[in-house]
Amino acid sequence: MIGGGQLARMMVPAAINLGIPIRVLAEREGEPAALAVAAYGSHLDLDTVLAFAETVDVVTFDHEHVPQAVLRELVARGIDVQPGPDALRFAQNKLEMRQRLADLGIPVPDWARVDTAEQLAEFLADHGGKGVLKTATGGYDGKGVRVVRDASEAADWLLAGEPLLVEELVEFRRELAQLVARRPSGELALWPVVESMQRDGVCAEVIAPAPGSAGNVADVAADIATTVAEALGVTGVLAVELFETTDERLLVNELAMRPHNTGHWTLDGSTTSQFEQHLRAVLDLPLGATGCRDEWAVMVNVLGGPTTATIADRYDAAFADQPTVKFHFYEKTPRPGRKVGHVNAGGDDLDEVVYRARAAAAFFEG
Amino acid sequence: MIGGGQLARMMVPAAINLGIPIRVLAEREGEPAALAVAAYGSHLDLDTVLAFAETVDVVTFDHEHVPQAVLRELVARGIDVQPGPDALRFAQNKLEMRQRLADLGIPVPDWARVDTAEQLAEFLADHGGKGVLKTATGGYDGKGVRVVRDASEAADWLLAGEPLLVEELVEFRRELAQLVARRPSGELALWPVVESMQRDGVCAEVIAPAPGSAGNVADVAADIATTVAEALGVTGVLAVELFETTDERLLVNELAMRPHNTGHWTLDGSTTSQFEQHLRAVLDLPLGATGCRDEWAVMVNVLGGPTTATIADRYDAAFADQPTVKFHFYEKTPRPGRKVGHVNAGGDDLDEVVYRARAAAAFFEG
Repeated sequence: MIGGGQLARMMVPAAINLGIPIRVLAEREGEPAALAVAAYGSHLDLDTVLAFAETVDVVTFDHEHVPQAVLRELVARGIDVQPGPDALRFAQNKLEMRQRLADLGIPVPDWARVDTAEQLAEFLADHGGKGVLKTATGGYDGKGVRVVRDASEAADWLLAGEPLLVEELVEFRRELAQLVARRPSGELALWPVVESMQRDGVCAEVIAPAPGSAGNVADVAADIATTVAEALGVTGVLAVELFETTDERLLVNELAMRPHNTGHWTLDGSTTSQFEQHLRAVLDLPLGATGCRDEWAVMVNVLGGPTTATIADRYDAAFADQPTVKFHFYEKTPRPGRKVGHVNAGGDDLDEVVYRARAAAAFFEG
Repeated sequence: MIGGGQLARMMVPAAINLGIPIRVLAEREGEPAALAVAAYGSHLDLDTVLAFAETVDVVTFDHEHVPQAVLRELVARGIDVQPGPDALRFAQNKLEMRQRLADLGIPVPDWARVDTAEQLAEFLADHGGKGVLKTATGGYDGKGVRVVRDASEAADWLLAGEPLLVEELVEFRRELAQLVARRPSGELALWPVVESMQRDGVCAEVIAPAPGSAGNVADVAADIATTVAEALGVTGVLAVELFETTDERLLVNELAMRPHNTGHWTLDGSTTSQFEQHLRAVLDLPLGATGCRDEWAVMVNVLGGPTTATIADRYDAAFADQPTVKFHFYEKTPRPGRKVGHVNAGGDDLDEVVYRARAAAAFFEG
């Protein structure tokens, strides 16, 4: 696994359970996946990545930041890279992703590539004077995304000379996410579509399954994710983030080709977690069952963490108050807005499950 | 954690989830808990154990083989040892255990200490000419246990000069196990009593909860485990192995003061696994809920493992056939009778759950 963040960390228990040795290439000491680190170095450096890749059977990723040139060199040398560069490019570059999805006839927000302030001004004029501007590469968790109402607000990004993506500001009822896992040999498994709530551009809460999604919404979400996974040749977990519009259409917002924050509920809420499924999938092993273990599962992120104590200082109060909630912490130092952990709750009564998850997470704020 | 076996291995995911750093002292490279090993050396050597213990906040155990002298020196130096030597001695020495339980009025099989062939012959004569002979220390998984019908069968053990324990051969209907976790500050949590089936003295299958145990049997088992945990000052997980006699009494067979094979079902079948609960307990953190996630949970051990292929060679067939079963392998080399993994299944229909678990495990035989 290239990258030592919390996604790599959460892959480790799945590897331990399945009896599969796991090795991590991390940038530096003290990252969340430290326990499984076998090498340190930059994922941008071909020699570093190559030396690491030669010690493992299959290479997969904690993030999508390994450059195409590095990925292609690995493949050229016969290394098994899952997902491969031909799929990953669409998770790395939002312009390529938008174009490819449009070519596939998958519903997406209106969009355009913009290289100049004039092009941006024209798009805004055509879309009610507002739009969502995104850098084509490198954005995540609200970074590289900006709502703009005037082309001058893009001046700094345009100066950098990289093409930008502008999209209509979608009037959405809510955001959904459809996760699917796919093996190189083709088998697919989908979890139920979930509802995700963002705060400051960062995933804050997830409800699984998305309330009221039985039937048409679930079917459309599953169809979209299946089409994308197959057409793009994705292997491992694919997360398709969707807008559900006020007129009940689903539009694809973003793609991620790895376990995703909107799938953390599966750690405790599904027969097979997204981390175990990703491992099975990239190793081309038969996929596990994706049923829900409870009627409702709710995930709440711990964003930022405590400011007046350590995370562990809050365990006594939180564990005593919420004995049924499952806690997940990443051994990251608290910092405003930083994802330092999450909690999962499950049960029959959605309001009560939401309450328990929020109550548990709240012990780690302030 | 002292000891690098599969119990230490299965503690690692719990530590990762809770965001608690875990360090293992293993005897040698390549043990199941390799990922978390921080030091190598013998748990019998005071200097090795001391040097390791000084790097952690709390010391706990994968097995009960650390000598009392070593444990007591750790405590004398102010190291937090959970469970402590005053509790562990009763898991280390079956004669001390039997005496203490008898003093507490807890039902146990008829027993005696024997140092000579004459004493053994006398006990056998009083108990229908047969008995179960056990070494006081060092036995596990059927080792150090022998059914005898004549005192001459104990000659080799008596020659060794260590006192032996002889017990009546109990006419039991079945074997049960009651697991409980206890914090130093007193809080206790019990899982439901389970039925365990042995093969060649080794745990082969577990059904949770024990069929037909609601009511009296469950209450008595819980009372016994609570009394033992409190009276002996156990911290962490305590496993009480019980005989259910043909006349429906419960007699204590063995004690283990650590996660136990009869609790492996909790990894997938309970809100809180025995490994997470052990961690919480030895750290004196509030305990998690111990409810069952399914009506029935069945654990089947993989004993020995394949003889004509590696374990991983069997993944394709096993995973494809049993997508709902959870697989746990310990990265141990197959060897006849060796515990190399286990599988967990859960559901509403006990017969069907047993079938699935056995079918999954069977892929790893022969």
